[in-house]
Amino acid sequence: MRVGIIGCGQLARMMALAGIPLGLKFSFVADQGEDTDISCVEGLGTIISWQPEQSINQLYLDLLEPSVITVEKEQVDLDLLRQLNQHCEIRPAVNAVGVCKHRYNEKQLLSELDIPHAAYTYNAPPEDSEKKLGLPFVIKSVDQGYDGKNQWLIKTQDDIDSFNQLGDIGGYIAEEWIPFEREVSIIAVRSASQEILYYPLTENAHENGILVRSISPAKQLEPGLVDSAQSYIKRIMEKENYIGVLAMECFVNDGKIIVNELAPRVHNSGHWTQSGSVTCQFENHVRAVTGLALGSVDSLGFSGMINLLGTKEPPMSSITSRSKLHWYNKAPRPGRKLGHINFLQSSEKDLEDEMAAFSGQAT
Amino acid sequence: MRVGIIGCGQLARMMALAGIPLGLKFSFVADQGEDTDISCVEGLGTIISWQPEQSINQLYLDLLEPSVITVEKEQVDLDLLRQLNQHCEIRPAVNAVGVCKHRYNEKQLLSELDIPHAAYTYNAPPEDSEKKLGLPFVIKSVDQGYDGKNQWLIKTQDDIDSFNQLGDIGGYIAEEWIPFEREVSIIAVRSASQEILYYPLTENAHENGILVRSISPAKQLEPGLVDSAQSYIKRIMEKENYIGVLAMECFVNDGKIIVNELAPRVHNSGHWTQSGSVTCQFENHVRAVTGLALGSVDSLGFSGMINLLGTKEPPMSSITSRSKLHWYNKAPRPGRKLGHINFLQSSEKDLEDEMAAFSGQAT
Repeated sequence: MRVGIIGCGQLARMMALAGIPLGLKFSFVADQGEDTDISCVEGLGTIISWQPEQSINQLYLDLLEPSVITVEKEQVDLDLLRQLNQHCEIRPAVNAVGVCKHRYNEKQLLSELDIPHAAYTYNAPPEDSEKKLGLPFVIKSVDQGYDGKNQWLIKTQDDIDSFNQLGDIGGYIAEEWIPFEREVSIIAVRSASQEILYYPLTENAHENGILVRSISPAKQLEPGLVDSAQSYIKRIMEKENYIGVLAMECFVNDGKIIVNELAPRVHNSGHWTQSGSVTCQFENHVRAVTGLALGSVDSLGFSGMINLLGTKEPPMSSITSRSKLHWYNKAPRPGRKLGHINFLQSSEKDLEDEMAAFSGQAT
Repeated sequence: MRVGIIGCGQLARMMALAGIPLGLKFSFVADQGEDTDISCVEGLGTIISWQPEQSINQLYLDLLEPSVITVEKEQVDLDLLRQLNQHCEIRPAVNAVGVCKHRYNEKQLLSELDIPHAAYTYNAPPEDSEKKLGLPFVIKSVDQGYDGKNQWLIKTQDDIDSFNQLGDIGGYIAEEWIPFEREVSIIAVRSASQEILYYPLTENAHENGILVRSISPAKQLEPGLVDSAQSYIKRIMEKENYIGVLAMECFVNDGKIIVNELAPRVHNSGHWTQSGSVTCQFENHVRAVTGLALGSVDSLGFSGMINLLGTKEPPMSSITSRSKLHWYNKAPRPGRKLGHINFLQSSEKDLEDEMAAFSGQAT
């Protein structure tokens, strides 16, 4: 059985590495701009470059006719997915990817399902957004943003003026500013037979919009927080007849969940599951999209993850008895996600100490 | 950094899959008779065919000049290893592989280190072995046997007569028959900085000389058994200045360890560590031979492993929440090791039940 993946980054790499032990074969689509990044998946399967003007029938044949195709990112050409869908299953389904790809669609889905989210406007002049949302607020491109890119924090009239001088940035939404206490995420997986399993809530820290570290389970959670998060992500998965891993990023504000963003794929905030769970998110995504039974998401202890950003060399000498290096083989660039370290400890204190020691050493 | 592996079987496959996340590159030597088996490691690195008459300097270049070379089997051409050793480290060292490759050398090492083993003769006529060892006894080729091949159980005068008619079988030893209560193994790993870690004792069941299942930790161990096993394998590792994973297969007779066989490599009876340990034997072998710190060998619960022998298709429908399939992509042949299933449970009872359910389903 062969699985096709749209994308050639580290998420594709880790899905393949989780699926190869099951005897599965992989092939990868390198679409626009990815030609320099295929080193992540080199050797793990057939890699096919594709541009929108090329034949999709031929692409499917070149991919060696996978039984199912999945994605490692939401910024995918939906027409590509729809046409591939004439040849094989797409999991998660095209519509689910489409909703998460477009921030306005995503907000509408959250509204429809009565899931708390930040107030927003769509393609409104910033002056109108200010009236509705107050200052500060955040403008985000509807479909051109990840890791904090293509976002504008509007705090003052000057910011509004600057924004108005940007020219055409395509569609966008403006969101009220949530004065959050913490950022958490939940990752769930739903099988073809409609079973849903939830990983524990993970607490995340971002710098400049990029995830830098996660801790799981998140500490000292307010009562009901886990239940809320699970019930929200369940609504979304059931509504979309979702198959695979879905990640939901949230703010905690005043002890309540406010959903910030969905990702129809394995997610950086779930990397700790590689050593911290009976079954990691990558294996469970592969199990789900290939129609297998899900694996247990039971935790094995207290887990953490630190991203390795822009590090030139893998920090081999920092690997310890209870930390695991995952290096992506990407060309180093300042600030680029090049790898991560997972930590697994039997107490919160040990986890904290080890992560602090690692950070101290790395800087 | 690149690691060369002599051999292209499932052990090479699983070492590579454990090392790739660390950013390591692999290359493989397919030596005599292995040309049909390279499917195990296809895609995981460069594969070079080699025959004894070919240049070893060229082989090293073709392997893309690995920093270290290791083995997935003991039946390796020692001259090949010695000459490769002029280019890079060989871990474990050539002498350690050589001792384990030859049953007589192995017995001598055990004797020298005062480690209990079965009484034996070397190249003696079976009539002399009968006098020394009594009936029954077992004749084993010194260097042509694994999975019970090239062994002869001698129970009667007729068996002796039959053996005498075999013609030249090369060097051999004869061993007294050990009326064992159970078979256990211990796997240890020693780093370049001389740290040694021990996985728990594993209980193994064989059929026709082939491992069929393992349980770890072994149940109801007599007091002192673990200490004995650890002290014996430690003696061997220190004597040989061993770097990497070493497996020691033992009989338990009258509540005591009797060492049966050494394997200078990762071992089938340690496959359960892939889901049952913080760090699996494959990752620890890779860490050791590349000079990294060892990973914790703490257990994550009660583990078991069942080999998939001669099964034509991977048993996808038998995969459960707490079982993991490892399929090797080898061409099916009756009785051939084609994959294994690992089980991880939080109680002995659950483990027993799940393994029984799997076996019931598979037959």
